[in-house]
Order: sequence, then C-alpha cells, then structure tokens
Amino acid sequence: MGRAPSTSGSSLELFDIDLDRAMELIKKSGAKIVGIQVPEGLKRMASEVAKEIVEKTGAEVIVSGDPCYGACDVDLDLCRVADLVIHIGHSEMLEGDPLLDKIVYIEARMKADVKETVEKATDILSARRVGVVTTVQHVHKLDDIVEVLEKSGIEAVVRTGGKRTRYLGQVLGCNYEAARDLDVDEYVFVGTGQFHPLGVALASGKKVVAADPVTGNVSVIDTTPMLKRRYGAIARALDAEKVAVLVSKKPGQKRADLARKMAALGEEHGKEMVLVYLDRVEPEVLINLGVNAAVCTACPRIALDDQAKYPVPILTPPEFEILLGVRRGDYPLDEIE
Amino acid sequence: MGRAPSTSGSSLELFDIDLDRAMELIKKSGAKIVGIQVPEGLKRMASEVAKEIVEKTGAEVIVSGDPCYGACDVDLDLCRVADLVIHIGHSEMLEGDPLLDKIVYIEARMKADVKETVEKATDILSARRVGVVTTVQHVHKLDDIVEVLEKSGIEAVVRTGGKRTRYLGQVLGCNYEAARDLDVDEYVFVGTGQFHPLGVALASGKKVVAADPVTGNVSVIDTTPMLKRRYGAIARALDAEKVAVLVSKKPGQKRADLARKMAALGEEHGKEMVLVYLDRVEPEVLINLGVNAAVCTACPRIALDDQAKYPVPILTPPEFEILLGVRRGDYPLDEIE
Repeated sequence: MGRAPSTSGSSLELFDIDLDRAMELIKKSGAKIVGIQVPEGLKRMASEVAKEIVEKTGAEVIVSGDPCYGACDVDLDLCRVADLVIHIGHSEMLEGDPLLDKIVYIEARMKADVKETVEKATDILSARRVGVVTTVQHVHKLDDIVEVLEKSGIEAVVRTGGKRTRYLGQVLGCNYEAARDLDVDEYVFVGTGQFHPLGVALASGKKVVAADPVTGNVSVIDTTPMLKRRYGAIARALDAEKVAVLVSKKPGQKRADLARKMAALGEEHGKEMVLVYLDRVEPEVLINLGVNAAVCTACPRIALDDQAKYPVPILTPPEFEILLGVRRGDYPLDEIE
Repeated sequence: MGRAPSTSGSSLELFDIDLDRAMELIKKSGAKIVGIQVPEGLKRMASEVAKEIVEKTGAEVIVSGDPCYGACDVDLDLCRVADLVIHIGHSEMLEGDPLLDKIVYIEARMKADVKETVEKATDILSARRVGVVTTVQHVHKLDDIVEVLEKSGIEAVVRTGGKRTRYLGQVLGCNYEAARDLDVDEYVFVGTGQFHPLGVALASGKKVVAADPVTGNVSVIDTTPMLKRRYGAIARALDAEKVAVLVSKKPGQKRADLARKMAALGEEHGKEMVLVYLDRVEPEVLINLGVNAAVCTACPRIALDDQAKYPVPILTPPEFEILLGVRRGDYPLDEIE
C-alpha cells in the first residue's frame, strides 16, 4: 500500500472545498465524462460530489478507487478515460504530460483555527526570528500565524517553497525547500502529524516547534529516534547481496534516472541490483522477488515512515550512498525537487 | 489486492519455461529496454531472468513489481517504458491496444505427470463420454489425458475454448466456453485448485471430476457451498442503498459498457449507483467510499473467491440482475468473452 493516505482519518467537516469552482469548470469545458480523485480521508465525499456533478452538469462521473497519496499521485488512467478530472485535496504539482492538462485541482483548506495553537507554540520558541512552514491544508492561515508570532515580539520569516509547491512556506513530505537557507535559529511548523516537522528539522538542522491546530498539541521535534532507525536500516542492509531499486509508476514519484544511477552504483560495489517498476510498494513483492534490501526512489516516506511493515531494509537513495561509502557527513534527507 | 495471484505457491522447479525463445526474440528485436512480468508464484525467477537477459543481450531490464493475475493483467505501464515485455506464465489473450504488440508471452508448462491422476479419476467417472478441460499450465498434456481415458474405455471429447483462450479444452477463471454444448454427461478437469472445476460445473450443469496432478487428489465437485454463499451475498445486498460499480483498469478486465449498464439498471430500480475505476479491489476503498454493496465488473473471482475479505457484499453483474429481479432461472456464472 505504500504509506498511509495523506489525509487519512480527517473528516469532511474539517475542510473548505470549493466545489462551485469545479462545477463551473465542468460546465465551461463541456466535459461529458468527469473523473473525481480524492485522498482516502475524504473519499466518503466522492459519491456526494459525483451526484452533484450529475445533477448540475449532466456529465457521467467516474470515481478513482485507488488510494491517493498526494498531487504526485494523480490518476493518469482516469485521465485517459475522462474528459476532465477533478483532483481534490492537493495543490497542483506536475507538468509535462498532456494528460495532466485534464486535471483541475481543488484544494482542501482546513477550517481549524491556528491562532490558539501558535500562541501556545510561542511559549517554547526561544528565538526572536523564526521561520514559518506549513502544509497546503493550512497555507491560507499564514497571515494568522505571522500575526500571532509578531504580537509576541517574534519576527516571522517565510520563503517560497520548491518547484512542487504552490505557496509561501509550503512544505511537502518530499520537499523542504521552504525550510532552507533562512537566516533564523528556529522554525515553527503548523500542521498535523510528526513527519513534516521531522523533515523540517532534518532539512534545516534547526530546532523545530510543531503546532498541530487539530489536536492543539505543541511539541519540540526530536530527530534522534528517526535517525537511530534509519542508521539501523542502513546497517542491516550492509550485507545485502541482491538489492531491488524501486521505481514508482506514480507520475510525481517516478525517478527513473536516479534509479538507474543507484543500480549502476550498486553494481560497481559488487551488489546484484534489479530495477523494479511498480505502482505500490507492498511487503509481498520484496519477499517474492527474493531481495535482501531495496532502494526506494518513490515517495521518501515509504522508507522513512513505513519501514516497520517491510521484511527487508528499504533505503532512500542518499542512504544507499552512505551504505556504499560514497557519501559522508550529516544524515541526508531524501527530497524530490 | 484483488484475489490470490494465479500461480501463488508454485515453485519454479515445477515448470518448463522457454526462456531461449525469449532471448532470441529480444536479440532479434534489438530492444534496448526489456520489461519482465511474472505472476507472484514465479516472481523469484525474475531477477535470474533479468540477469540472463543482461548478460546475453546487453539490454537494460525492468521487472514489473505489481501483482499479476493473468494475461488479462498485462502491465501496460511497463509497456510504455520498455521496448519489449516478456510476460511469463500465461497464454496470449488480448488485442487492440498497440502497446500490447510489445508483449511476448512465454507460457509456463507444468512438468507434473497427469496420467496417474487421470487414471484415478476414471474410477469415479461413470459416463462413457466425457468432456476434457484444463488450464494453460497443463494443455500440453492433453494427449496424455485423452490416452488414459480411452484406455479405460471412455470417449474423450474436447472442443475449442473462448476467444480469450488459445488451446483446445482450455478454460480460464473467467471463461468456460470449452465446457459448453458438448454432448457429454460428465467432465474431467485437470489442474490445481477448486475454482476452475467449480466454474466448469456451473457453466455446464454437469458432474465434474477434478484431477489435480500436483497433489494427486481426485474429487467430485460440489457446487452447493458456493451457491449458498452467493445467494447469501445477494440477499445481504438487497437493502443496499448506495452501490459501487467497480470497473477495472486492467486491460483484460475492463468492462466499462457492462458497468454503465449495471449503473443504469440500479438507478432505474432506485439504487444510488457510483462508478468506480480502480486497479485493485481493496476492502478499504469500499469502506472509505461508504457504499453498502458493490457490483464488480472486473475479474469474476473477486466476488466468487474473495467475498470473505470484503466488508460489504460484492456481486457479479448477473447476480446484481437477480437482486433487481430482472433475471431468473439457474445461477448465472459471470464470464468474460
């Protein structure tokens, strides 16, 4: 299954989703077949949205039934059979394939107030200049975040993110450019879960305070447990003779050139390497292929978040370079540009 | 995951696989990138075959890492990135898409002797004229089967299968044409598992003796438990208000027109129907979509073999017609022509 879907567990009432815009675009396009793709946590809305589209536009609607992990994971097969695809919950990321032109991105903006939680975060921020980062679900609250920080006498610094992002201060599970090269000593991350703020801490090397507007929890991120786990995985993969290099079919996770580079590097160092092309990284495939380890060039979270469910160590490409001894220095976070 | 992979549990030593033919075709084609697709039970051979192709032809090799359930489930994404794809373990089935022209089918022929088991089967066959059916793994043993039957004074009758098959007497999990309209009173099925002989019994309405050359077991097929389960599923789906119609992305399981027909039929009968396009039928998607039942137009085995793992009743299209009251008579087996 790869990793847990991106908004899993969130309920529909938590989000503002601009469906009127979707309806207008469908009518304007004259689409006869409309596809809908939503992440798992919002999937329950799919049939309601489908019904509304049928009633308001007369188009036939087809819902994507495969899990969706982000804008990196747009359903190109659905694009092949539909005239227009409504992709709900993520900001636009990809370009290049003409099929992508069929997609309309309708973001899901979390209604949750951020002010109270950021206020709490100021108690454990010690710097006077703080970098602000968040995810697409909260980017529309950036002004609120900055306002609370500045009221507490903290200067908020925000920068543009990587090419895969659309908003100031936006980070992704695979991209932390918005948390780099800022002249600050600390970061505040506003959003849910531990993965993104861990990424911010590893990418920036700075103290990160995570403020979760849904639970109201505020915490200082400790990277040590994850680093221990990752160096443990690298150590366990040291003796692996046969290593799979996983290449994703998902349009925004497909790093074929990087995979070829890893395969060549492994062969140079005496490993037997096999290139594997797949949609979802499942534990079974690694068992059935009979490999002792894998290098995953798909979503970095597969290795970093989900190692426990796999029967063999799964390394990110820079971790594999550490294993081979061709990379040294601080722990290298795998990011997709 | 859909259902259990087609040759799961089989070990490589059980099969004859003509890899020399694959090597010749690769060399002749001048392919620079060669894809390999194998069912799960044979996946362990993938890296060995990959190595051999690299050594003998110099091509780059990419292995399909997604589960493979049959020739209906060829990896078109792999065809998009490879110059030639070696599909191991199934006989050719599909045509139409130009991507399919890249595929070379290398069948896996089971070495197991069939004579002894068919001999055993003659003890429980009572008819003097018997229809013979088998799967692609044993079709090369058809002469042996016929010889044993005729030695016991039984006339063996064999006919061509459906369009999706390639050999006399060949049945598929989704097609039993080779077991129809024969002037016989009984059938002997040679092969592994219970699903195919159950299909033969339902399709023919005749007594079926299953002879498994791997285990050596011989048994008379009883369709009652399966029919009870299926009518039970239909009964449980009677009150379903919201029903998903599942359409497979797999090239040989995509029955979009049938799905549209089922959706229209359901709507006419007051059900809320939602068309769902997906690669694998997972229990989670049905929960997340919030449907009370599903009509599966993908592989018939998903409903018939795997119902237990799904949270809601999954019906085949003809079963859904029974539910709606638009079909009567004997239990209608879902087949793909």
